[in-house]
Amino acid sequence: MNPKITLFEEKIAEAIDNVFTESQPRTLFDPAKYTLSLGGKRLRPLLTLMAADLFDKASDDVIDAALAIEIFHNFSLLHDDLMDKADLRRGHPTVHKKWDQNSAILSGDAMVIEAYRYIAKVPKSQLREVIDLFSTTAMEICQGQQYDMDFEKRMEVSESEYLEMIRLKTAVLIGCALKIGAIIAGASCRDADCLYEYGINIGLAFQLKDDLLDVYGNPETFGKKIGGDILCNKKTFLLIKAIKNSENSQREALKKWILASDFDPDAKIIFVKNIYDELNLKVITENLIEKYYLASLDCLSSVSVSEDRKKDLIELSENLMYREK
Amino acid sequence: MNPKITLFEEKIAEAIDNVFTESQPRTLFDPAKYTLSLGGKRLRPLLTLMAADLFDKASDDVIDAALAIEIFHNFSLLHDDLMDKADLRRGHPTVHKKWDQNSAILSGDAMVIEAYRYIAKVPKSQLREVIDLFSTTAMEICQGQQYDMDFEKRMEVSESEYLEMIRLKTAVLIGCALKIGAIIAGASCRDADCLYEYGINIGLAFQLKDDLLDVYGNPETFGKKIGGDILCNKKTFLLIKAIKNSENSQREALKKWILASDFDPDAKIIFVKNIYDELNLKVITENLIEKYYLASLDCLSSVSVSEDRKKDLIELSENLMYREK
Repeated sequence: MNPKITLFEEKIAEAIDNVFTESQPRTLFDPAKYTLSLGGKRLRPLLTLMAADLFDKASDDVIDAALAIEIFHNFSLLHDDLMDKADLRRGHPTVHKKWDQNSAILSGDAMVIEAYRYIAKVPKSQLREVIDLFSTTAMEICQGQQYDMDFEKRMEVSESEYLEMIRLKTAVLIGCALKIGAIIAGASCRDADCLYEYGINIGLAFQLKDDLLDVYGNPETFGKKIGGDILCNKKTFLLIKAIKNSENSQREALKKWILASDFDPDAKIIFVKNIYDELNLKVITENLIEKYYLASLDCLSSVSVSEDRKKDLIELSENLMYREK
Repeated sequence: MNPKITLFEEKIAEAIDNVFTESQPRTLFDPAKYTLSLGGKRLRPLLTLMAADLFDKASDDVIDAALAIEIFHNFSLLHDDLMDKADLRRGHPTVHKKWDQNSAILSGDAMVIEAYRYIAKVPKSQLREVIDLFSTTAMEICQGQQYDMDFEKRMEVSESEYLEMIRLKTAVLIGCALKIGAIIAGASCRDADCLYEYGINIGLAFQLKDDLLDVYGNPETFGKKIGGDILCNKKTFLLIKAIKNSENSQREALKKWILASDFDPDAKIIFVKNIYDELNLKVITENLIEKYYLASLDCLSSVSVSEDRKKDLIELSENLMYREK
């Protein structure tokens, strides 16, 4: 592993360990601490530290902002899991299962506020710009989640609606994580904006890769059961394209499976995957991922620091593109 | 009515009308706008404007901060109503009844973020101080709500625990509303702190008055049915004192009514009120309200502006103390 990245990851882990440690009552803060402890990739705070590092800013100067972003991200997972009635998150029971619904609501609220407490620690001269970007992004994530829930109730969603939804729900926080690192590091507006757009493209590719792995992941390395999205009729890029690109007979059969309440799970996965295969959706999705990945590299190449400094970010985004889980 | 207060109220109403008007999707923002439209006293933003006015600061310069506080207050009502499973708020169906639970969760989240968007509009030189106070207060409100929910599961709660809970859940936002008005108006730290303490005392008196009115309010002017708190075993100041001050036989009878799941509502109200009467709780509560009211006047008298300028605030707090609903 890259030693700099390892160091950053250790700093992030240590900082997260110190959140919500002392506060009372524990009935409020234990579920929040539990949510944060479930881990995950810690991708967003890492991107903040790496963006700042591009401009030679020390990680200690951006760790609070990085933490704010990770706390907000985990808040959104907590409330989303409650709204989606998900029982598990990264293999562990979700807060509303381990505690109860009210704990999930109120601990999530406390996490939003804690995120703002951390973001408000940035230097005074950058406070307004950073906090405005943070709030705009936070609101976009709520909008994205609302579109996602609204789409669940509709049979047909257009490709552009879907891409806008994942831009809001997933990509903007990745762009924001990078841009805030750049702002605090004193980068020019142009560089900060390029990093934001780099993040948007990485974020879109990242989510499409998620959609793809659910169907075409390697069962031995994926970590979750293949076909989870298919079983719960999640409006992924593949399902949306399948509904759009299918012929009448295929589409009717697909809709029957979507509307069925009593079915054999394996049969449903095989059937839907078969349609995806017939419609060549693996390649179509891979091509779109590639398009966003190349666009992201384009944005990164416009950032006015030496190519040598960008190697870590390029390596990280390659890993995200070629990941197996 | 005091013409200045009327003008302030109009400004607040107009500003609230402009919140969440254009944003999309409406599935996210309509429930938020509905919550804000239900009205109520608009006490907190009014206090921000009045605190600024004490130091001759124009209301237009503090209206954004005042709005932030009102939006946050309404967010907390929205999520509290969901957690308490309340069907009505100010005579109208609550968001989770009119829409659904997920709308209540996510629209509430959007309101917190919108509150931060407004609070971040304060002048740069005061931004950090204001936002830190706002976040501390917001977190305290969550802590207060958690204590309130925790207390529901306990039979005995001490008077000091109860007073700390209502300080967090109700009083700190009133103190914060006043202090933020003072900070933006350029008041000294000492004056801003005195106004905060004035608000804490007013807030405590205000909540105790609420507890009192539920039992001893005039049914013709109260607006709600008398005894609502008694029926749902709400741990009000009166119930906590009753459990503490009652003799064994009274206490056992009281606990039986609290634990009963099948009972005649009117009989329960009459029984519990009778115990309150026997324990002289009306007078005990009135005395405590008076104590906090006098303490609030004491804090206000320490603020270094002419007594003449304080008349509006004194009149407002008198109205709060002697209100019938």
